[in-house]
Amino acid sequence: MSLDEPHIDTYARGKALSEQVNPGMEDVLRDRYDTLVPGLSKTVVDVAYGQFYARGGVDEKTRLLATIAALTALGGQTRPQLKVNIASARAVGATRQEISEIIFQMTLYGGFPAMINALNAAIEVFEAEEDDT
Amino acid sequence: MSLDEPHIDTYARGKALSEQVNPGMEDVLRDRYDTLVPGLSKTVVDVAYGQFYARGGVDEKTRLLATIAALTALGGQTRPQLKVNIASARAVGATRQEISEIIFQMTLYGGFPAMINALNAAIEVFEAEEDDT
Amino acid sequence: MSLDEPHIDTYARGKALSEQVNPGMEDVLRDRYDTLVPGLSKTVVDVAYGQFYARGGVDEKTRLLATIAALTALGGQTRPQLKVNIASARAVGATRQEISEIIFQMTLYGGFPAMINALNAAIEVFEAEEDDT
Amino acid sequence: MSLDEPHIDTYARGKALSEQVNPGMEDVLRDRYDTLVPGLSKTVVDVAYGQFYARGGVDEKTRLLATIAALTALGGQTRPQLKVNIASARAVGATRQEISEIIFQMTLYGGFPAMINALNAAIEVFEAEEDDT
Amino acid sequence: MSLDEPHIDTYARGKALSEQVNPGMEDVLRDRYDTLVPGLSKTVVDVAYGQFYARGGVDEKTRLLATIAALTALGGQTRPQLKVNIASARAVGATRQEISEIIFQMTLYGGFPAMINALNAAIEVFEAEEDDT
Amino acid sequence: MSLDEPHIDTYARGKALSEQVNPGMEDVLRDRYDTLVPGLSKTVVDVAYGQFYARGGVDEKTRLLATIAALTALGGQTRPQLKVNIASARAVGATRQEISEIIFQMTLYGGFPAMINALNAAIEVFEAEEDDT
Repeated sequence: MSLDEPHIDTYARGKALSEQVNPGMEDVLRDRYDTLVPGLSKTVVDVAYGQFYARGGVDEKTRLLATIAALTALGGQTRPQLKVNIASARAVGATRQEISEIIFQMTLYGGFPAMINALNAAIEVFEAEEDDT
Repeated sequence: MSLDEPHIDTYARGKALSEQVNPGMEDVLRDRYDTLVPGLSKTVVDVAYGQFYARGGVDEKTRLLATIAALTALGGQTRPQLKVNIASARAVGATRQEISEIIFQMTLYGGFPAMINALNAAIEVFEAEEDDT
Repeated sequence: MSLDEPHIDTYARGKALSEQVNPGMEDVLRDRYDTLVPGLSKTVVDVAYGQFYARGGVDEKTRLLATIAALTALGGQTRPQLKVNIASARAVGATRQEISEIIFQMTLYGGFPAMINALNAAIEVFEAEEDDT
Repeated sequence: MSLDEPHIDTYARGKALSEQVNPGMEDVLRDRYDTLVPGLSKTVVDVAYGQFYARGGVDEKTRLLATIAALTALGGQTRPQLKVNIASARAVGATRQEISEIIFQMTLYGGFPAMINALNAAIEVFEAEEDDT
Repeated sequence: MSLDEPHIDTYARGKALSEQVNPGMEDVLRDRYDTLVPGLSKTVVDVAYGQFYARGGVDEKTRLLATIAALTALGGQTRPQLKVNIASARAVGATRQEISEIIFQMTLYGGFPAMINALNAAIEVFEAEEDDT
Repeated sequence: MSLDEPHIDTYARGKALSEQVNPGMEDVLRDRYDTLVPGLSKTVVDVAYGQFYARGGVDEKTRLLATIAALTALGGQTRPQLKVNIASARAVGATRQEISEIIFQMTLYGGFPAMINALNAAIEVFEAEEDDT
């Protein structure tokens, strides 16, 4: 499925994916943000999910590991989003080891503090999981 | 193979991997940098390759796609290294589509300019390749 | 016009704005990038123009000055995009003084080097203009 | 009023503006920081207010929206200052909509996480206001 | 002592330095991180201490002031590490004035918010010290 | 000499230092920038030199090494300013080894690409010097 088909409905495609990965997300965003920024929730679903994550060409696990890498290297300043993406990566089958290895590797690009801060975020996510993997 | 074995030789492990991925790299680094920073070339081989890329737990292609993601999101300021890692990712089997998709996805975290600049770097690498994939 | 109307066509809205500000932009992007990333040009038009710049609520000149501020503070690593946005700001009526003042103010947030580098980019844009303002 | 007049007193100019926007600010800074860094409070008033914000050439509201844009794109790492500037923008007449729109637009340059984090900061400022606008 | 001697043991060199500066650090890191990332604690000791801080050529105080400068300019996103390095600088003889001056100077490169945030971190470290200097 | 003396002339103090370190700098800045941003050259002299570098409390060499550290960690995006500061550090007595060591150390905070890019800038400065040190 590709975006160059003229009539693709990116919102519908994004909605399907976001409901699968984060059920109820659009509603949460709408309640919190849409009074201030009308349409924010719809843009997140349409753009982030419909026009990027749902594209295909790379499997979802690799996409999420790439996102974790980027947020780690950016320096921990996006900790809430880092934790959301770590949880999403777990949901599509990434092991704790894979996630931790990718974070550790980012020492080379974002430095040791960024790596340690991201690993601390990952530990919080892992500890909140009910079972071990 | 894990780093918690007390006597692992990370330099030897890194040397084996770096010679496989970038033959002659340590010599090039030594000639250029070691007069100023004695041991720089050895540290790069030992640390970047021996203590990070050679760790296992994640396949090399995923590691390189994660690096490409991070360098893209960091904003194109490390363009030479981005190109080296794109070439390395190609060398371990990443398709142009996979690389391009990961770069495109980084729009969500590093913004449109960072994405376009990284895609331009990728195009330069792809155009320098002899055959199409 | 707001995004919370269920059936708004953000691509059409973005296309109208992008053709007004940068005529032919989607074609240029399609020719350069869409083989690698199918639909990239459409996403840029739909998202950047249709879902952000065309929203209303703030006039276009202020939006462009805000973008110039952000790209300046991010450190000059997005110089090509900075120049495009400076030219766009000029096209919607921003004076050289307004643009220069906003860049200069960014010393406080991005430091002196980021400010000087952005001012150099602005000078290049101004020198390429045919008439003085 | 311009800085190229040889004898302009930038401290006096900055003091007048800072007292108008943040009454008592220099005293607060002096009490907290000047033992460690003698003259810090005076430098903030002289430089940030006297040599930048008080320059003219662009109205104060646009200056503050530009600052909000930059701090958003820098990634939420300067949250306390972002909140101060949002409150200052409100004080010179910026509406909640204008502030929110500028923050939302920064998705294009700083990514979705930076935008959401800044919007959360804005919401805190808005909720602390006594009346609605 | 230089890294270009073929058989230098960077782990042993790093261990000696880390035990002197932060006694017990490797054990703390091992307990917290090595289950997830086997060998992380050893890599920190070997790389950060053995292959960088222990190199010589620049005295330890200058090295730590340089680190404080960098972490300040990076924007306060690495606050825990900034505080550790401020404490380490104090331990090797840096005065509060020297540390504060270097942080203040970073206004020129990282902006006022980054400087204020770092100074706040320094104040926390200084207040936790038992005696005045 | 401290800024908390009420009548200190920071411009005069900065002018004296800037003429010593970079003779003629204010004139060069004035010719290039002051038409666009009236007073820019005076602000650079007053603020960067008078209100920061001339403060005392830390020797000039350490200040410049700290600046080199920060610009390295910020990722090479301020290469022209990095080179200016490396040359200034040389002028106040920093050896090539000291500069190179500080840059190399930044691997730990800004990553390997930032370090290599900064070292390349240093090499350019060193090669432009007439004599070896």
